[in-house]
Amino acid sequence: MAQTAMEADAARAVDRDRLWRRLMEMGRIGGFTTEDGHEGVNRPCLSPLDREARRLLIGWARAAGLAVAIDPAANLFLRLEGRDASAAPVLTGSHMDSQPQGGRFDGSYGVLAGLEAVEAIAASGIRPQRPIEVVAWTNEEGGRFAPGCTGSMSFTKAEPMAKFDDIRDAEGIRYADALAEQLALESDLPSRPLGYIPHAYVEAHIEQGPRLEAEGMDIGVVTGIQGCRWFTVTVEGRTDHAGTTPLRLRKDAVQDAIRAIQALNALMHDPDDVLRFTVGSFRVKPDTSNSVAREVVFTIDFRHPDAKVLRDRGDAVAETVARAMTTCTARVYERFHAAPADFAPLVPDVVELAARNLGLAALRMPSGAFHDAQFLARLCPTGMIFIPCRGGVSHHPAEYATPEACANGARVLARVLCDLAAV
Amino acid sequence: MAQTAMEADAARAVDRDRLWRRLMEMGRIGGFTTEDGHEGVNRPCLSPLDREARRLLIGWARAAGLAVAIDPAANLFLRLEGRDASAAPVLTGSHMDSQPQGGRFDGSYGVLAGLEAVEAIAASGIRPQRPIEVVAWTNEEGGRFAPGCTGSMSFTKAEPMAKFDDIRDAEGIRYADALAEQLALESDLPSRPLGYIPHAYVEAHIEQGPRLEAEGMDIGVVTGIQGCRWFTVTVEGRTDHAGTTPLRLRKDAVQDAIRAIQALNALMHDPDDVLRFTVGSFRVKPDTSNSVAREVVFTIDFRHPDAKVLRDRGDAVAETVARAMTTCTARVYERFHAAPADFAPLVPDVVELAARNLGLAALRMPSGAFHDAQFLARLCPTGMIFIPCRGGVSHHPAEYATPEACANGARVLARVLCDLAAV
Repeated sequence: MAQTAMEADAARAVDRDRLWRRLMEMGRIGGFTTEDGHEGVNRPCLSPLDREARRLLIGWARAAGLAVAIDPAANLFLRLEGRDASAAPVLTGSHMDSQPQGGRFDGSYGVLAGLEAVEAIAASGIRPQRPIEVVAWTNEEGGRFAPGCTGSMSFTKAEPMAKFDDIRDAEGIRYADALAEQLALESDLPSRPLGYIPHAYVEAHIEQGPRLEAEGMDIGVVTGIQGCRWFTVTVEGRTDHAGTTPLRLRKDAVQDAIRAIQALNALMHDPDDVLRFTVGSFRVKPDTSNSVAREVVFTIDFRHPDAKVLRDRGDAVAETVARAMTTCTARVYERFHAAPADFAPLVPDVVELAARNLGLAALRMPSGAFHDAQFLARLCPTGMIFIPCRGGVSHHPAEYATPEACANGARVLARVLCDLAAV
Repeated sequence: MAQTAMEADAARAVDRDRLWRRLMEMGRIGGFTTEDGHEGVNRPCLSPLDREARRLLIGWARAAGLAVAIDPAANLFLRLEGRDASAAPVLTGSHMDSQPQGGRFDGSYGVLAGLEAVEAIAASGIRPQRPIEVVAWTNEEGGRFAPGCTGSMSFTKAEPMAKFDDIRDAEGIRYADALAEQLALESDLPSRPLGYIPHAYVEAHIEQGPRLEAEGMDIGVVTGIQGCRWFTVTVEGRTDHAGTTPLRLRKDAVQDAIRAIQALNALMHDPDDVLRFTVGSFRVKPDTSNSVAREVVFTIDFRHPDAKVLRDRGDAVAETVARAMTTCTARVYERFHAAPADFAPLVPDVVELAARNLGLAALRMPSGAFHDAQFLARLCPTGMIFIPCRGGVSHHPAEYATPEACANGARVLARVLCDLAAV
């Protein structure tokens, strides 16, 4: 059978209803219903709910004939053997943990789409040259143990695993202890060493943004992950009585913080609307209506796919804030800086070709959000497949993707995995 | 003994050191020390600390032979009986609650100066014709339950007491429930009905502004209180992922709230710097650095001595905010509106005369801050005695008045109470 015919068979074998049923069943583990009827998920990593979700996944994988293994970071692997068992596997997957008020698709979709694609490949009688592995990365969200992506960072050696040992959750539990408990409770699973160099990595995910839906596209061909810089700005003034203190004698932290944000709006202005600039937190002290504010702390989330823009405008933040002060003083602290990740062309090109062969409208785009793929891109050719999600909403119970959009992503993924595992 | 001789005796009997010791002792209830060595107070109304402070006050009052009573608004009265027990009392006092980061003098000074003056009158062997009552009003500051002055508004029937029932503090506790708890825990105190018509009301207070100190004056003879309007503005947008959502598709509540405040700055501009405009609280939801804000709630504190300015500009707030919205919607709620109060000449004239007889430099001036006296002025002849405070600082741990300034105010108050209670 020719390669393209095999890929077409695999895509056709994707079972839309089975994928949807599994998404819904998985979403009930840690699931809750909001007052306005949305079905949210709260499934912290390394929790009993996380283990319940993994057991469900393992049951489906074994029924499909996949081999299960776990590594020291509790990353879970489901393997379809290749004709050459010693060849570097093609890796796909995402994560199973959620934000505290998360949705049913973020992460779970990438794992279940991977399982669906691999099951479709196997059911089509295709025996790929290379093994294909579906992975569920540990702690992508960082909702319980921050920062996230500790599973993929450990796997890729982006950071030594021990660096995360002493992270604590809100109850004071150490990451290392939670991980050891998980490994003990899953000691029936075959274990494997940490990390390897995959032949390629591809991750399916909801877009978590509105572009695909707004532009009527079926598939996002992700070309990289934009860079990100996070700042905390502290504006210090002096509190005074709101009724007695003339405005000319005040050091009003709210007013100078507002001037700073206006100046930052100008600095970050982008007519192409590619740059992302967000002030999402703004906290006032003493925060009473009849006292002039003595302090404001606000955050800056700044992202751009171009390293130069990220550097130049980010480096101008402190001076821009300082110039905006009239009576207060300001301190700017950069607490996070991630350079843009550009994916090598191989996987994006294969994704785009697969979408075209399926008659799906595809858009090349960077990812606005972080993903485990960011770290895999350092090891091997990497790509992502985005599907549209309603209103671009994510990290929220209202997060939703249609059954057909989910199936489209799995169909593209099945073709891509066939292609990448063929040689 | 002639009236002026009695007044002189009463003023002489004011014990500067006792008043100062009591101020310092009271300041330790809810007291804290800042990093730069200031002694602040955080004593929310209707809290265990508030009750502790009231018990301390009651102990001093009973030792001085005063009768204690409480009304349904938890206003606390300390009574020096008059020769005519049925005559309308002369009322003096202030409040015992503080701002969250408040000082030791605001409010407490007026109550303790009242106690000192009454004690001095009694110790001088003077038996005034009318009863003199010292009052500690409930919730003047509004720091826990906003708006403030609920005790004096209830007493004067400026508003029906039930109007405040459903005010909630930051933890969701209802004012009515906190009040009921206070009354139950103070049920050993004699209770009395809510409200009466005093013969006159006089309140001693730190200036909370810089004028007396700057002009070298000992006493402020307060002629009235500027008007005040408080608004709460709710800006509603939509939360979105900060990394993925293009700015043109956002409904960013922080950005529209900032536009609203800029527009309000323009509306409230006053070249004479008489108008007071303050945004002291600004709260964001969900308040995370990587999510676009779906809601901002900010407050407006607007004051002016001229009723027309207060009406015209205050009435323009809602439209000004609405016009500033680009993508969000806004609701403006006026939660408090107090017209300017001009005091009748009686009490200010008596205060000025008392200061002159004591050889103190007195300045007639309006009050920039809001006081319970504003509501009493509707019921009876009313006045206030201001003393200088360092740098005009108030609502801050650095708030300070010298022992001599505190004693001067109590001496003036003792003379004024003698005078007003004589007939």
